[in-house]
Amino acid sequence: MFDAAIDFSALYAAGLPAPAPQWNGFPRYNFVGGHNDGARVPVDALVKAAADVLAREGATLAFYGLQSGPLGYRPLREFLSAKLERTAGIECMPDEILLTSGSLQALDLVNALLLSPGDTVLIERDNYGGVLTRLARLGVKAVGLPLDGCGMRIDALENALEDYKSRGVRPKYIYTIPTVQNPTGSIMPLERRHALLALAARHGVPVFEDDCYADLVWSGERPPALYALGRPGNVIHVGSFSKSIAPALRVGYIVAPWAHLSRMLASKTDAGSGALEQMLLAEFCTAQFDNHVKGLTRALKAKLDVLTDTLAEQFGTAAEFDPPKGGIFLWVKLPDVVDIKRLAAAALEAGVAINPGPEWSTDATWSQSRLRLCFGSATPQEIRDGIAVLAQVCQREFGVPVQSGNVRHGA
Amino acid sequence: MFDAAIDFSALYAAGLPAPAPQWNGFPRYNFVGGHNDGARVPVDALVKAAADVLAREGATLAFYGLQSGPLGYRPLREFLSAKLERTAGIECMPDEILLTSGSLQALDLVNALLLSPGDTVLIERDNYGGVLTRLARLGVKAVGLPLDGCGMRIDALENALEDYKSRGVRPKYIYTIPTVQNPTGSIMPLERRHALLALAARHGVPVFEDDCYADLVWSGERPPALYALGRPGNVIHVGSFSKSIAPALRVGYIVAPWAHLSRMLASKTDAGSGALEQMLLAEFCTAQFDNHVKGLTRALKAKLDVLTDTLAEQFGTAAEFDPPKGGIFLWVKLPDVVDIKRLAAAALEAGVAINPGPEWSTDATWSQSRLRLCFGSATPQEIRDGIAVLAQVCQREFGVPVQSGNVRHGA
Repeated sequence: MFDAAIDFSALYAAGLPAPAPQWNGFPRYNFVGGHNDGARVPVDALVKAAADVLAREGATLAFYGLQSGPLGYRPLREFLSAKLERTAGIECMPDEILLTSGSLQALDLVNALLLSPGDTVLIERDNYGGVLTRLARLGVKAVGLPLDGCGMRIDALENALEDYKSRGVRPKYIYTIPTVQNPTGSIMPLERRHALLALAARHGVPVFEDDCYADLVWSGERPPALYALGRPGNVIHVGSFSKSIAPALRVGYIVAPWAHLSRMLASKTDAGSGALEQMLLAEFCTAQFDNHVKGLTRALKAKLDVLTDTLAEQFGTAAEFDPPKGGIFLWVKLPDVVDIKRLAAAALEAGVAINPGPEWSTDATWSQSRLRLCFGSATPQEIRDGIAVLAQVCQREFGVPVQSGNVRHGA
Repeated sequence: MFDAAIDFSALYAAGLPAPAPQWNGFPRYNFVGGHNDGARVPVDALVKAAADVLAREGATLAFYGLQSGPLGYRPLREFLSAKLERTAGIECMPDEILLTSGSLQALDLVNALLLSPGDTVLIERDNYGGVLTRLARLGVKAVGLPLDGCGMRIDALENALEDYKSRGVRPKYIYTIPTVQNPTGSIMPLERRHALLALAARHGVPVFEDDCYADLVWSGERPPALYALGRPGNVIHVGSFSKSIAPALRVGYIVAPWAHLSRMLASKTDAGSGALEQMLLAEFCTAQFDNHVKGLTRALKAKLDVLTDTLAEQFGTAAEFDPPKGGIFLWVKLPDVVDIKRLAAAALEAGVAINPGPEWSTDATWSQSRLRLCFGSATPQEIRDGIAVLAQVCQREFGVPVQSGNVRHGA
């Protein structure tokens, strides 16, 4: 039988991304990725929820979309409809919610709705890396707007909108993470939300609101969502259960009027997102969401405190940061002498994974000495040990932090 | 506050598909979609599997990809590695298996690996509708090859390969469903598999093998997969748990050497497919897959018998078909006078949903009086009643089947 090996070099699609590296387990000190606290997964309650909902409705797994249609399991959309009104002021019907495979599929669907190659979008300068890589792959120009302690700066937004208008360009959307911004952890105050919405409406540019981390606010209180404050059609809202319950359960959602949802649904050719995870979440969350999130947030805040204490102890004034208002990450500035990409590579050799700023920002110069530290999954001891190793590596590579008697690193 | 409604007409991406229709529940007699038999979902065993695996490993849900990395939950890949060798003759390591969100994501990832707009692929003329719509959206030319009772005709494949070669075109792949073809239900015999692989290798065209329905073979025996017979790199193999366990659990898989998988992984930007469903399946399948499939297959065969008996009773010789060798669908030819799209629309009005042939074939003329009937989810009584309604509608619209004393319809 003729069975030569086929040469694929001329077969692969043009513009394929580089091959993924082989996975060799998590690094010992893992400060990257939106992982959560393993100890805070409500295992017993999830076991009970799974047993209850499967015993009651397991036979419906035989049907694509269960008995709920392509928007996703209706009891979970009903939970969300009530929860979003209670916590974020959003009034929406269950049929204005589309359940997705994590908020990443939500990003993809919103992008598919609005973006073509060559388009321009306005986003926060420091940003979720997955958004930056998605936009780059789509051939879309992502214009980064500077942030302050209250999120996206409105003066910068206004200037950008006027500037692009004068050049005849209408940006396709303003993407913002207003509530626990990634990576800065800021929360945009109410007045700024109104100002942003007014600018967006005046320029005819929709707002794409990513509320992925909004459940994890230390104070337990948050301003109303942009979706609640603007005209619903002007704002598309995205959220997730990854941070509030568990990231391996791939369940996110889009809130939008049916006019938008029906068009996104037409691009969602996956025959529905995973139904069991939706069933489990509905069962668990309807009874216990608020309580669970309260405990989780407390645990995360305690870890943040360990992280900031350790940074102060190990790096002294060399590590600058504004404490985040919630979430699972800290955005840190090191002295300009630190080439953060080189530090990240050296730290990984020593078992410490960090996100180098340039992967998390539209501005490579601004972010060249910045890093994101995720503190959701490491234990307090791992945080202390990992940051100590990071400081040692940084000291060795860049002479920063400067050694001093009461600092343990470099000893 | 300025808050005008934004006009989206100039904002939507070019080439968006038409908006999805609102979902209003399943039709009364549902012969479309790959739904399964609700009564055959092993609810008790799934409850136990969920409880066991969650109690043991629930805390790992806090991590993207659990502790298994981006290929998916390792115990499920280990199950598949053993199962594919046992049933399909495929020797592959767990790291040569990528778990996906149903086999639809698998299709998308293989297409992303190989296809660019303007490319040509060779497929079976009568085919899964979701493949046809995907290829059309990608701007790829899908050349349909005729089938006989043994699947894709090799003479037609050879002619097509030679023809395209003479025109300087190298098709990107040969897509085939060799084991329980959709919609014809045929199984390609061993010799034809070898012949197909030899042609593919000679022309340097990879084979894309879709084995989605291959677990549901009436005889319980199937030929080795193409993947097992050819050079692994020359064949990419796709499968699913949708038909063997439950479609709402969105778990499929790709089998391929790492050289291909690593490139597909780089396009899989969803931070992993749903982990709980993978955990549940691993737990359940490792203990009970074979037994479960045996019982399910028996039940499906019994439903097929009800369907074919009812068709004979209601349509007489007007309904022609080759009984499928397995699966959940029957491909039926009605007399040429029947415009199947008109019949489908009229039947839906009467509560009966069918797949009109032109949505399931590359050849609109060949398929204009053909239809696909899925028999997985309807009860035997629903099959009898639904086909009787279909015959009544067909008689009313097209005078077919011709009324006779011993036929109930049209009375």
